[in-house]
Amino acid sequence: MHTQTKLIAFPDYVPQTQRLAEAAKLPAETLKLHSFPDAEVLVTLPATIPRHVILCRSLHQPNAKLIELMLAAQGAREAGAQTVSLIAPYLCYMRQDTAFHPGEVVSQRIIGQWLANYFDNVLTVDAHLHRIHRLSDAIPVHQAINLTATAPMAAFLRREVEHPFLVGPDSESEQWVAAIAAHDHWDYAVGAKKRLGDRQVEIHLPQRDYSQRHIVLVDDVASTGQTLLQAARALHPFAPASISVLVTHALFVGDALAELEQAGVRQIWSCDSIPHATNAVSLATQLADALQQTILAKEV
Amino acid sequence: MHTQTKLIAFPDYVPQTQRLAEAAKLPAETLKLHSFPDAEVLVTLPATIPRHVILCRSLHQPNAKLIELMLAAQGAREAGAQTVSLIAPYLCYMRQDTAFHPGEVVSQRIIGQWLANYFDNVLTVDAHLHRIHRLSDAIPVHQAINLTATAPMAAFLRREVEHPFLVGPDSESEQWVAAIAAHDHWDYAVGAKKRLGDRQVEIHLPQRDYSQRHIVLVDDVASTGQTLLQAARALHPFAPASISVLVTHALFVGDALAELEQAGVRQIWSCDSIPHATNAVSLATQLADALQQTILAKEV
Repeated sequence: MHTQTKLIAFPDYVPQTQRLAEAAKLPAETLKLHSFPDAEVLVTLPATIPRHVILCRSLHQPNAKLIELMLAAQGAREAGAQTVSLIAPYLCYMRQDTAFHPGEVVSQRIIGQWLANYFDNVLTVDAHLHRIHRLSDAIPVHQAINLTATAPMAAFLRREVEHPFLVGPDSESEQWVAAIAAHDHWDYAVGAKKRLGDRQVEIHLPQRDYSQRHIVLVDDVASTGQTLLQAARALHPFAPASISVLVTHALFVGDALAELEQAGVRQIWSCDSIPHATNAVSLATQLADALQQTILAKEV
Repeated sequence: MHTQTKLIAFPDYVPQTQRLAEAAKLPAETLKLHSFPDAEVLVTLPATIPRHVILCRSLHQPNAKLIELMLAAQGAREAGAQTVSLIAPYLCYMRQDTAFHPGEVVSQRIIGQWLANYFDNVLTVDAHLHRIHRLSDAIPVHQAINLTATAPMAAFLRREVEHPFLVGPDSESEQWVAAIAAHDHWDYAVGAKKRLGDRQVEIHLPQRDYSQRHIVLVDDVASTGQTLLQAARALHPFAPASISVLVTHALFVGDALAELEQAGVRQIWSCDSIPHATNAVSLATQLADALQQTILAKEV
């Protein structure tokens, strides 16, 4: 049925794309990137472009990736693709959705419209939306699908941790921590965050009986890891049995991992939306199911 | 007359923009860039956006710069600008204008159309065009202006070198070396290049009397510097009095400068299209004149 559809992976997203291709029973190929000495990039697509192209890449450290993405998407269209879709399990520039000071450029709207210029559909996971609630409000494409990884994360925890106590460090994490806890009626608590700067936050946790419990700190994205780090430190006085971390998107820039380990965090797990050493939860099945029910359902 | 027009510089292009602003008698401000730990960028424009905005930045090492450029241009438009123009004395992605192998994406056309989505006018200098001859064929904006820096380069050489003998290393450089030589009827010669790879070329020079002459190697852009380096080496057997280098755009990636100096190149000069230690020729007056005669002539 879908012989006219092909996944095309960027070279930095090949294993994930192969797992997704198996789960979705779709063919997959990899495009080539060549950087010239002047830092311009040559994109070479597979020689045969089907009617429906689905480009696969996560968009952490996004700026250079976005230019390569535009060249690949438009190149596929010029080579005959009738629809070009994007699977970007980690999506960028979804945070700045309003101007906090005069002159600030609202990047969410501009990047969203720009994506819509090149893609018919966008599929992502746990996009970090603040003041808007539907991905289609940010990215005006035909189908803008924002999955949540809470089901595979809950299934993973069920295997790994006995009677976990889930802790979301701040109110924004509540949607994820509550959804994961609901799968098995686990205990959970949600802290409060005060942001003092790009790399400085304060976390206050509610008074609960964390003592001798296996705590799992849960969040959608770990960037500098400071939010998780301060949450781990706030847990120490309660003498939990263990502290672990489970996030959807593992950015962990700079020394984030080492700092978490120094703060006594025993295990750090993430979904494979961003290729990272902490990847433990595959999103392939969930992405494949969503693909079948949304983008592929419209393609013949 | 042009109180409704403002130059807005990127932070890496402030001195050049100030010189241009003085020459063009236009106000200039600088926008702000803030990089978050996850490498996303916040662009903050000046609080007051006039009717006509002219963004100023060179586009070497282009990919991340292009995303910032899009955010600034669209942000200016959303803040009320009626026209948004670009002065990019060094323009990127003008070389790949055809597919040499199946699947290769023709970046010139895609980047050109993308620029046209955000800008009303584009002003650049010595864009490296191969198979197309007019910038407007690559960038379908209202006014696409491709100046050549040969006049200020000739004026500079007149002051610096007595009776120079100009050498263009390959046939593509002939347009520049011939134009500069014509200003003062200087001798010039043009070599032939065989490209063996991104960083490997062979240069063959015509038999001329280079002996005891002050040779100036001339080209539009120095990337790895290999073309200039091999040309300098090809000159050695002729025992010239000196070898110098004059280029419009100074990329000089990697060890290019050191290699040229080791090969006996005495002086290396460039225009200020790309901020670089070798900058010796200001393009401000020429850019200001062109601005007055083209983009500003249409604005009221």
